[in-house]
Amino acid sequence: MTRLFPGAGRGPVLRQPWAPAVAGALALAGCATAPSTAPATVAATPATPAVPPTMQWLYGSGEGAASSIQAYHAFRDHVLAAARARPVDSVVLAEGSTLEAPRFIPCGDRPFAVVLDVDETAIQNLGFEYQDALQPGRGYDQQLWNRWEQTGASAVAPIPGAVGALRAVRDAGVAVIFNSNRLAENAAQTVATIEGVGLGPARHGETLYLKGDIAPGSEKDPRRAAIAGRYCVIALAGDQLGDFSDLFNARTLPVAARRAAATSGPLVTMWGNGWFVLSNPVYGSGLRGGFDDVFPADKRWSDPAGEE
Amino acid sequence: MTRLFPGAGRGPVLRQPWAPAVAGALALAGCATAPSTAPATVAATPATPAVPPTMQWLYGSGEGAASSIQAYHAFRDHVLAAARARPVDSVVLAEGSTLEAPRFIPCGDRPFAVVLDVDETAIQNLGFEYQDALQPGRGYDQQLWNRWEQTGASAVAPIPGAVGALRAVRDAGVAVIFNSNRLAENAAQTVATIEGVGLGPARHGETLYLKGDIAPGSEKDPRRAAIAGRYCVIALAGDQLGDFSDLFNARTLPVAARRAAATSGPLVTMWGNGWFVLSNPVYGSGLRGGFDDVFPADKRWSDPAGEE
Repeated sequence: MTRLFPGAGRGPVLRQPWAPAVAGALALAGCATAPSTAPATVAATPATPAVPPTMQWLYGSGEGAASSIQAYHAFRDHVLAAARARPVDSVVLAEGSTLEAPRFIPCGDRPFAVVLDVDETAIQNLGFEYQDALQPGRGYDQQLWNRWEQTGASAVAPIPGAVGALRAVRDAGVAVIFNSNRLAENAAQTVATIEGVGLGPARHGETLYLKGDIAPGSEKDPRRAAIAGRYCVIALAGDQLGDFSDLFNARTLPVAARRAAATSGPLVTMWGNGWFVLSNPVYGSGLRGGFDDVFPADKRWSDPAGEE
Repeated sequence: MTRLFPGAGRGPVLRQPWAPAVAGALALAGCATAPSTAPATVAATPATPAVPPTMQWLYGSGEGAASSIQAYHAFRDHVLAAARARPVDSVVLAEGSTLEAPRFIPCGDRPFAVVLDVDETAIQNLGFEYQDALQPGRGYDQQLWNRWEQTGASAVAPIPGAVGALRAVRDAGVAVIFNSNRLAENAAQTVATIEGVGLGPARHGETLYLKGDIAPGSEKDPRRAAIAGRYCVIALAGDQLGDFSDLFNARTLPVAARRAAATSGPLVTMWGNGWFVLSNPVYGSGLRGGFDDVFPADKRWSDPAGEE
């Protein structure tokens, strides 16, 4: 859309609700009592932070919901078609692949499966993010997240579109396997979390893989390889590039090069065609970069009217 | 993904880079010199604001790029299939439709077309957003945006996936029509902007509709109806719900109800199936709502360890 707010008469809306918080003056949309029908321009008491725009978009907006429903529609349609077609290759990269020369693990006659990340791919961590939004200066607290894994099962919701898509693929005889970096010691609670919102079943070691399974650490390639040894994996879903291949998280890859790796080369055809990304601007490996990383040098512009 | 940063040894990344800016203390990822390979934890000088996470995600990340490539792959595949199938109905809602009882304008034997929004649907307004990120407290300035429309043509880039998709649909004989709320007085510059990044041609009044065309104001329904009177519209693409129907922007629709309108009811099947949404957390009608609008009351959670 253009800068003009759609809908006549609404007028311009402050585009960066976090900005006034930065200035420390006006907190936008901080009214935590009744749901609001008006644009979010109500001054809040200083004690109430604003909901960050990333969360307004992902958890509150029709646009964010439509985006995930769309992704899960494509996921479902692709999986049902692939299950009928018996593909030669899976969508899991084989060992020795590079981003420029990818090879996929062959399927053989193994049964079909899909592999999905959990957090902000299949479920929304609403309870945790609510708390996070209330404490904007805090930063990541691994112990807090661990307590969330252990006790937050009733405060999550499925990502829009996920329940119907997983039901359809299971009905078509395709196994659903979750590949998450939640902790193995919290497996029972993670199972309860997934199953509690209608995305189950999930069984650790069979249809749920967690951090440290197969190999130590957070990389997901070893788990994908193990799954692809048992199944013909016909779709991957995730909100981070690491949900598709650890090659995207090579330490030598600067921000712009990492984006280029996703937008060019032979793997670009995978997006929406076996690899399904769920938009997540709230956290993750995409939230990196300074001005020169994010804005190409040849796309700079200055206001011809001069400094304001 | 979970809270743990993918890739062993990277350690936790500050999840809310805007938060320290809020505290006014540490600016995250503010290094505007060389591209960074390290996680964005470098302290910036107070004069350099941080790139907001919304822009890091949309303009800088492989995740954001993959999301739009995926959307445009689905758009292209749908359009090519529909053009072969000669659908009875278009994807444009007919007058008198409601969200609960939608009807679509029939196609007759009119030639095929797709209709796309421009800003953050077909193009990225990099030059403008770069300036906006440098001035975090400023808020929306309509005159500044007007000057951007007039002079920014060389500082935009196509949304990843758009160029190839539009080429494919044009090659299939489908007309490409832009429906934008940019100003009609800047039509020539908007044509130059679209054509300059390989998304053209665009001709005002034929394949480019602007604010105030057909009917006064920002609502896009009248323009869609006019286009659907000349073409069989088989796909819509946009980053805001108003790019699909003004019904989503009814003033009586609170935030949560607007999201529910997109996630339930008969129109939910349109996402990825004639209606293609491009994720845009940087600005727009999705960035609304306080805590009670965004976080359902039954999904609240408190840290069992108590206040920190």
